[in-house]
Amino acid sequence: MTCASLSFKVQTTRGSELYEGSMGDRNILCIGLVCLDIINVVDKYPEEDTDSRCLSQRWQRGGNASNSCTVLSILGAPCAFMGSLAPGPVADFVMADFLRYEIDVSLLAERAECSFPASVVISNVRTGSRTILHMNRNLPDVSAEDFSRVDLSKYKWIHWEGRNAEEQVKMIQQVALYNSERPEEQRIATSVEIEKTREPLYQLFPHGDVVFVSKDVARHFGFQTAADALRGLYSRVKKGAVLICAWAEKGADAMGPDGAVVHSDAFPPEALVDTLGAGDTFNASVIFSLSNGKSLQEALSFGCQVAGRKCGVHGYDDILPRKQ
Amino acid sequence: MTCASLSFKVQTTRGSELYEGSMGDRNILCIGLVCLDIINVVDKYPEEDTDSRCLSQRWQRGGNASNSCTVLSILGAPCAFMGSLAPGPVADFVMADFLRYEIDVSLLAERAECSFPASVVISNVRTGSRTILHMNRNLPDVSAEDFSRVDLSKYKWIHWEGRNAEEQVKMIQQVALYNSERPEEQRIATSVEIEKTREPLYQLFPHGDVVFVSKDVARHFGFQTAADALRGLYSRVKKGAVLICAWAEKGADAMGPDGAVVHSDAFPPEALVDTLGAGDTFNASVIFSLSNGKSLQEALSFGCQVAGRKCGVHGYDDILPRKQ
Repeated sequence: MTCASLSFKVQTTRGSELYEGSMGDRNILCIGLVCLDIINVVDKYPEEDTDSRCLSQRWQRGGNASNSCTVLSILGAPCAFMGSLAPGPVADFVMADFLRYEIDVSLLAERAECSFPASVVISNVRTGSRTILHMNRNLPDVSAEDFSRVDLSKYKWIHWEGRNAEEQVKMIQQVALYNSERPEEQRIATSVEIEKTREPLYQLFPHGDVVFVSKDVARHFGFQTAADALRGLYSRVKKGAVLICAWAEKGADAMGPDGAVVHSDAFPPEALVDTLGAGDTFNASVIFSLSNGKSLQEALSFGCQVAGRKCGVHGYDDILPRKQ
Repeated sequence: MTCASLSFKVQTTRGSELYEGSMGDRNILCIGLVCLDIINVVDKYPEEDTDSRCLSQRWQRGGNASNSCTVLSILGAPCAFMGSLAPGPVADFVMADFLRYEIDVSLLAERAECSFPASVVISNVRTGSRTILHMNRNLPDVSAEDFSRVDLSKYKWIHWEGRNAEEQVKMIQQVALYNSERPEEQRIATSVEIEKTREPLYQLFPHGDVVFVSKDVARHFGFQTAADALRGLYSRVKKGAVLICAWAEKGADAMGPDGAVVHSDAFPPEALVDTLGAGDTFNASVIFSLSNGKSLQEALSFGCQVAGRKCGVHGYDDILPRKQ
């Protein structure tokens, strides 16, 4: 697949050619983690107790919700991030990067409790392996109380990266209450991502109009394909919701209230360059499509296309084909 | 050995109890590298292609000359650092840390060519191993031309961490010329560190009133003890110079113009906690002693004591015994 074969056309700055005018004034809000990823590219995984030199190193704003904001912004959707961050040089870097992508950070809470840790990624160009040393972040996630102060009228879609699920359920219930008091066109769509195999996250299944469940979680439940996972897990989501499961090079499947499995193949790049954040790219692209009234099939294909392209480039800046 | 058994008494802020009044107004200048070390403490070295969590992470200003400045400052010697740094969040962190230790950074050159890479250290608390992933720093070192603009009258001692040796030899020659035109009491003492086994660094041997040669370099030349290294390498240093070789837990040896080998045992801490920068601590402590007129034997013992204590504490802040 070449870049030119991608079937979508959107601008790399705000405002999409396809969807312009249908976005409305309201934004998409993503709630979850922002962190710093220090990505060290090596051509041999370092042996213990040796000194070696990286081929290159780059600093990248990371965290699922934060990455999804980046992609939404590149796709042309005004968006906002909500999460917590400790002051210091990491915060300075992260804030500057949010601003670079014109992501609204007015809901980002600086918390002084913690210093400025980073996740270290050792990326082996020979094997494609990624070894990740997570920081001990120790920063409280956004609470339902924090969320109660958000002016919901600004948002048309709110996405939660599953983390402090108990609090997140309360937030989604706040949105449900808000929606119940408003006409259809003012309501907020909700989505949740259940990525990690942690029991408390599974309480998020019955919340959210769209639920993204990861391959990891699907396997944890004993499913070997995305379609099987959807059939097995769909009973957990709320009435009318859409359940979506991406499966790396196998593409992604989705199931809506009609019970039919919708599928898109993957769109692998010519060469795998950088898979970090591919899942976050998929989620953002699906949310972008659905929030603009596209069908589930269209959204799924779009998600796979953009995620596939992301795997062929470093970072996010080139996930859209260059305009001629 | 307990803290109390350390035989030296100095204050942890500027001004030493032992040496006060003998310091004069002139500073000690250290020239070399400053970088950021991101130290990740783990209890198991990460296997390739896994996700794991550090026990803790800390950011530390690193680089040999930069570390030696920290120690000089803690010992109570006004000091300055000369080196290059790229602007960005690492520079902000590094500068704030220099200021915290009251190190003069007026000779620090910010160079815009480069971004802000960091060295990643994986420190295994179970085995004591340290695995270091060096950044590709790609920043030009200070040149002889940069150095020619330094007001030498401010310094009583200049120390070079051997790096761009050809340029550094020219700098030392500038100091030799400066000294040749001044009376004894205005002259500047010089020292060089030859730590890495890189051929071009060996041209530094015949320069410097004091030459620190590492165990690594000594072994590279085929010597199995510090004393053998001194006997074998002394012919390389200039007339009247002192050659010093530290050998980890075996202590350190030195040889002056009389050809006698002076020795100090190591002063190991009760538990090895953090050996990063122990050599830089030794160098700084020896320079501190010698610059205050102490004998070679006194300087060597002092160097081993402070370096030993450093290995028993994290970072540098507690390298001196607490005052009662």
